[in-house]
Amino acid sequence: MLSSPPGAVGVGLLGLGTIGTGVVKLLQRSADEIARRLGFPLRLLRVADLDLERERGLNLSGLRFDSDAAGLVADPQVDVVVELIGGVGAARELSLQAIENGKALVTANKALLALHGAEIFGAAERRGVDVAFEASVGGGIPILRALREGLSANRIESLHGIMNGTTNYVLSEMEATGESFEVVLKRAGELGYAEADPSFDVDGVDAAHKLALLAALAFGAQLSFEQIPTEGIRELAPLDFEAAAEFGFRIKMLGIAKPWAEPDGLRIEARVHPTMIPAHSLLANVNGAMNAIAVQGDAVGPTLFYGAGAGELPTASAVVADLMELARELRRGSALRVAPLGFPLSQLQPLPIVPLGEVQARCYLVFTARDRPGVLAEIASLLGKCGISIESVLQKGRGGDAGAVPIVVLTHPAREHDVQRALAEIDRLPDVAARSRLLRIEEKL
Amino acid sequence: MLSSPPGAVGVGLLGLGTIGTGVVKLLQRSADEIARRLGFPLRLLRVADLDLERERGLNLSGLRFDSDAAGLVADPQVDVVVELIGGVGAARELSLQAIENGKALVTANKALLALHGAEIFGAAERRGVDVAFEASVGGGIPILRALREGLSANRIESLHGIMNGTTNYVLSEMEATGESFEVVLKRAGELGYAEADPSFDVDGVDAAHKLALLAALAFGAQLSFEQIPTEGIRELAPLDFEAAAEFGFRIKMLGIAKPWAEPDGLRIEARVHPTMIPAHSLLANVNGAMNAIAVQGDAVGPTLFYGAGAGELPTASAVVADLMELARELRRGSALRVAPLGFPLSQLQPLPIVPLGEVQARCYLVFTARDRPGVLAEIASLLGKCGISIESVLQKGRGGDAGAVPIVVLTHPAREHDVQRALAEIDRLPDVAARSRLLRIEEKL
Repeated sequence: MLSSPPGAVGVGLLGLGTIGTGVVKLLQRSADEIARRLGFPLRLLRVADLDLERERGLNLSGLRFDSDAAGLVADPQVDVVVELIGGVGAARELSLQAIENGKALVTANKALLALHGAEIFGAAERRGVDVAFEASVGGGIPILRALREGLSANRIESLHGIMNGTTNYVLSEMEATGESFEVVLKRAGELGYAEADPSFDVDGVDAAHKLALLAALAFGAQLSFEQIPTEGIRELAPLDFEAAAEFGFRIKMLGIAKPWAEPDGLRIEARVHPTMIPAHSLLANVNGAMNAIAVQGDAVGPTLFYGAGAGELPTASAVVADLMELARELRRGSALRVAPLGFPLSQLQPLPIVPLGEVQARCYLVFTARDRPGVLAEIASLLGKCGISIESVLQKGRGGDAGAVPIVVLTHPAREHDVQRALAEIDRLPDVAARSRLLRIEEKL
Repeated sequence: MLSSPPGAVGVGLLGLGTIGTGVVKLLQRSADEIARRLGFPLRLLRVADLDLERERGLNLSGLRFDSDAAGLVADPQVDVVVELIGGVGAARELSLQAIENGKALVTANKALLALHGAEIFGAAERRGVDVAFEASVGGGIPILRALREGLSANRIESLHGIMNGTTNYVLSEMEATGESFEVVLKRAGELGYAEADPSFDVDGVDAAHKLALLAALAFGAQLSFEQIPTEGIRELAPLDFEAAAEFGFRIKMLGIAKPWAEPDGLRIEARVHPTMIPAHSLLANVNGAMNAIAVQGDAVGPTLFYGAGAGELPTASAVVADLMELARELRRGSALRVAPLGFPLSQLQPLPIVPLGEVQARCYLVFTARDRPGVLAEIASLLGKCGISIESVLQKGRGGDAGAVPIVVLTHPAREHDVQRALAEIDRLPDVAARSRLLRIEEKL
């Protein structure tokens, strides 16, 4: 039977996919450095995966590699279980079983925590074991630690995060090449930047999972992930990037969260959508598959945390950092130094999400109208009737006699509810040829 | 006698200057939030300062405020001492006394740690108490935590930091206005961005202190602060900013550190000087008094941490985060969870600094030469003789018949020793009218 050398902390790994492979590589190649930092070694004892055949370029001699996940989470030699299976089926059951067996848990599974966080964290608190999940948001960026400890003296005033590498890659390419969403997405797939089914990324689901976790850490808020308003990037057109540049903006897929302190308590504005932001802001200059999270604190002011949001070794960097932190606790015979979400569970409040209709923002609107006299006046009049004030108008190109042309309007700050009402009325005009579109603007970045 | 409420952790504050005032404000206004995160309150019991009269806009009722610093560090009610006196005289003695008395220590004093770190950290390790110093580098940016824990699974490949707000403000203004160093520095002083004696900032001493601390955390290296090659920003001229823009660069005052793994062991390249960096890099877009540190890890790849590097509340944000971390340990009856420098002291190696002469970089050179035929050829010939290959030449304007004109040369990568030899020879040419100048270029950012 395999066992840890004296003083070592034993690790069991569930799931040998991309990130799992990175974790094995990093634990092996940095073993000396890790032991030098910790004062004792981490020992990877067992790996479980359903696929025992695939060539992963790893040397797995000296450890047990099989498909016995249930045995791994019950193994008395294993002190910490690393869950990298993904999904919310087996991952949930094995994580709960590991906790029940008194193992500390490291996971990169944002879907699991966004959907079943209360169950997982509750079980861990009752059992007195630690759960760490730095790799679940922002890949290798230590953003959860920053919110939980580095900025813990602050009331967080806003979060703006580029948290999905696939969408940031697609938007960067669309901007650079002027190509359509479909063309760029296809290439992203070929280059390995997008999954075969990219909807989880491009429709914003992944970013919404991550936003729910960040909001918990930032505000002590339990957010119901399903209620976060989420829009993807499928409808963006090359015109939008041109117009953004003319107005001094760039388009980024953001997760946004802000606390609304109101007489009857706190609500959280939380939303995920493509957003126009000032071209000179740092966040606007985060390109390709990179991630960044901008955090505004009442004491620290603006901060930004930048790095690779995905990938084998960047994500493994966060997983192994978590392993090292939990191993330190285990060696001291302790746990729960800091609550996993920064606040003790008893202090986590289920807070309502502000309905999108109540949110105020400057808006970028695109109308596709037949190029006839009076159309712009009709649109402007309907906007005015809904209380929306126009800041500037841009008409790109001219169609033929009956051709449809895009009319771009930048508004002063307006309430989303009013904007949607105006768009619905404008879309009923006989001269409007396609559904009107809206991008929200964030300026304080 | 004042005492903590049951369960509270008692805090004593040495030094009620700008940061000390911020710490008191933050502890008072965020008391509930802090207790909610910790599960128990922090109680500020005593403040000591020599100046008891100055109006600071604080309510100090309910705590003891006097000049008895020695009494504070001996007070049995005080669990954590916050040292914000600055300097290396009284600050050193009181910090050592606090440690001797078994108090945990929080400090923002980079000079103290850069010059007397071995003594302070050694005393703390022997006495079994914690020392935290997040506020000493990058103000409110949690960069020390990131290096110590968030990126602890990485071998750090490089650090590039904008770590002094005064110099970054001056450089940003020189670039924006085209004004001289002297004019901008004067205005910075009037606006509160520069001290009455700015030499500590503009000559790079402050940045070198911070770089010594970062290198310790990043590489487990004890660096002798005095040996870090350091150049200030006094010699920069408006021409340099114009030329930088033409070449696609911006000029930033950087602290740079990289490990050199060599057959006989590790040496650390560490240097502080104004540097040309690619205009589109994130670091180049950190403006005004803001700070940022770019860290390249072997697993995580490129990362960047951005925020306010100074100021009352941003720095207090870091001090109070440290207080919260140490208070958690004290309440658990433990200490030294993580070694203050990330590595146990026994693992910290005194590593040699690579002499600047051995460093390779592309260089920006400015020669001031009489505008006569053949001068450029002479300069180019001497550069070539020293093995320096020219990438491009820019001649700005023309003088009169005997007027001196600046000749700007961009070189391919060259060894500093060779560049200095060439400059010395060129400066002896009869047609060269002023001392030649050099800026080093960093590209992988």
